[in-house]
Amino acid sequence: VTPLPAGFTGHVANVGVKDTTDDFVVISATRPVPSAGVFTKSRFAGPSVLVSRQHLADGMAQAIVIVSKNANVANGPDGLADAQELASGVADRLGCAPDDVLVASTGVIGRRYPIERVRAGIAALPSPLGGASADDAARGIMTTDTHPKVAEAQVGDGPARVVGFAKGVGMIEPDMATMIAVLLTDAELTSTELDTCFRGVVDSTFNCVSIDTDTSTSDTAVILASGAAGRADVAEFEAALRSVCLTLTKMIAADGEGAETLIEVTVDTARDAAQAKRVAKAIVNSPLVKTAVHGADPNWGRVAMAIGKCSDDTDIDQDRVVIRFGGTEVYPTRVDDDGLAALSKYLAGDEVTIGVSLDTGDASATVWGCDLTAGYVRINADYTT
Amino acid sequence: VTPLPAGFTGHVANVGVKDTTDDFVVISATRPVPSAGVFTKSRFAGPSVLVSRQHLADGMAQAIVIVSKNANVANGPDGLADAQELASGVADRLGCAPDDVLVASTGVIGRRYPIERVRAGIAALPSPLGGASADDAARGIMTTDTHPKVAEAQVGDGPARVVGFAKGVGMIEPDMATMIAVLLTDAELTSTELDTCFRGVVDSTFNCVSIDTDTSTSDTAVILASGAAGRADVAEFEAALRSVCLTLTKMIAADGEGAETLIEVTVDTARDAAQAKRVAKAIVNSPLVKTAVHGADPNWGRVAMAIGKCSDDTDIDQDRVVIRFGGTEVYPTRVDDDGLAALSKYLAGDEVTIGVSLDTGDASATVWGCDLTAGYVRINADYTT
Repeated sequence: VTPLPAGFTGHVANVGVKDTTDDFVVISATRPVPSAGVFTKSRFAGPSVLVSRQHLADGMAQAIVIVSKNANVANGPDGLADAQELASGVADRLGCAPDDVLVASTGVIGRRYPIERVRAGIAALPSPLGGASADDAARGIMTTDTHPKVAEAQVGDGPARVVGFAKGVGMIEPDMATMIAVLLTDAELTSTELDTCFRGVVDSTFNCVSIDTDTSTSDTAVILASGAAGRADVAEFEAALRSVCLTLTKMIAADGEGAETLIEVTVDTARDAAQAKRVAKAIVNSPLVKTAVHGADPNWGRVAMAIGKCSDDTDIDQDRVVIRFGGTEVYPTRVDDDGLAALSKYLAGDEVTIGVSLDTGDASATVWGCDLTAGYVRINADYTT
Repeated sequence: VTPLPAGFTGHVANVGVKDTTDDFVVISATRPVPSAGVFTKSRFAGPSVLVSRQHLADGMAQAIVIVSKNANVANGPDGLADAQELASGVADRLGCAPDDVLVASTGVIGRRYPIERVRAGIAALPSPLGGASADDAARGIMTTDTHPKVAEAQVGDGPARVVGFAKGVGMIEPDMATMIAVLLTDAELTSTELDTCFRGVVDSTFNCVSIDTDTSTSDTAVILASGAAGRADVAEFEAALRSVCLTLTKMIAADGEGAETLIEVTVDTARDAAQAKRVAKAIVNSPLVKTAVHGADPNWGRVAMAIGKCSDDTDIDQDRVVIRFGGTEVYPTRVDDDGLAALSKYLAGDEVTIGVSLDTGDASATVWGCDLTAGYVRINADYTT
């Protein structure tokens, strides 16, 4: 069990949004503390995102409330009113200002909250909140996740910690952050330090995962720093934060809807980081690469095809590209039939690494995704109604 | 049976590229005739594409040879030599210059042709070629297509015709043209007229289909005009060409790998045609929209999500967007439970139309795709080795 960092309390409950599993999570500091967040760029962003973005404008927040099993998206003015009521109701119970409460939601789009049940959940909030763990919170925000996603790291030699919990599954190609990820630390940092660190880390972790190329309307990643463990070295803090976010990112990729295999793609010797990431994403998002991995088929031609899709990268020359499965070069040097059999065995494992060298420069990037299975189709053909 | 237009002969055979089904197609005019082509922009374009692009530089060609079941891609200098030998071998038999022969290939990437068998196939070519029909040719270029794709139209009141045959299946999001499509006409047009018409038509037909967002290394669409039926009105010719290409496009979408439902997405009242096509593609390519259609689930929230992915289109306002399934508005006006049941029935049909109004201008675009099924996963997890 991973306790929340010092200076935070938590409450997790079922209020009956959809079924009897936990669906209502509130985490609070004892006062407004430095906070930062990154959100979906979707043109159908939900009111939770709009409200949280607004409430974070001053770099301070005290609490976050998360409702799962209903995204409260595309519900017009009613949806916005519901999100605002959620923030102000929680603020009332905690004795803080509504604009110090962040809101996040995940689940079906286009349905209103069962607002009476949500109100009852707010009224039942203990004050102060109780001792819910990060694991409790992670369970409370799950939808089709098969297990809760929690990670922690110590900042340098301590005592400060970074604790994160997240949910992933489908509709995951974050443009700013993944579905919902909450990072908490008891390190003391300014809002500006926090924001700078967090954006940098998110860009190379959550923004490098893709399950199905679909971008959620509700993507939200926030961090709150209680300061209860005292001032931390910023570089040590950033390393701890990166470690936690990276662990959560890989958990999200490995637990993609229907996923059986985690795919890690690293592109190196690229012109710049953007090119490396673009090519890596083209590979990890290719349905034909994903199905080849699922079928344990060392069909590197599909990786070549996916690289080729980056047609604006005219400096990519197929005669200078190198492709590897695991550490084994498969193009341009070919492997023999024994080698192919060994690779097929490798691809049948839980984690597969695809490496590509472009020879257009010296930048690199790593991204994570998963295989495409009949399970993905089943889950998403049956979800909702 | 659809005969080739006047002025063309054809030969279809099995040369044993992979199995005993037809895999070798040659179509020829009696002399070099005005021709045009569009090709993949892939950075891993195969030598067939390179050779054909070069041979079409003068706007003239006499023949095309198509090998199926092997794409001859990513084979280095050997692959280029094989493609050139294919063109010059066929040219020898037909008595024309090698640079008047176009080459196209489709199938597995990264394997060389069984070149001795291909040579035997060339040696066995009758001269002149025989009377193969467009249906024979369409069958000869199939890989995982479940049926041959042929379409024809009369130019105005005739006698000129446009006949096309194509293959589709997976790895289909053409950036210039789909996998392989051959258009033949006996109308008389100049190379320039042909090129202008063809590019315009391809842009609103083949370039508007997507099966799985993967772009082939071998995409090729070419047209040859024998002129045997005499001079045609260009506008009438363009209308006939558009009709044939549109029919083939819809056939390709409906026969996507594993597909059970053809999805047509029309976006109107967009700022410009590019925005309309971008939003329409975002919808038709969304795995969550595709699985919702497969599950006959009127989950319009996923269409909203897909529209939202176009995050650079900052003029798209979720409060002004309208979404329809069939002709039925589902957002912002909601349908009741009876309406949802009726929509579910509609989505279970063979063809589904999704309509979106953006209210950002007066442009529109229509694109075609298919549902995502366990069949797609099965076909692509098992293909190749």
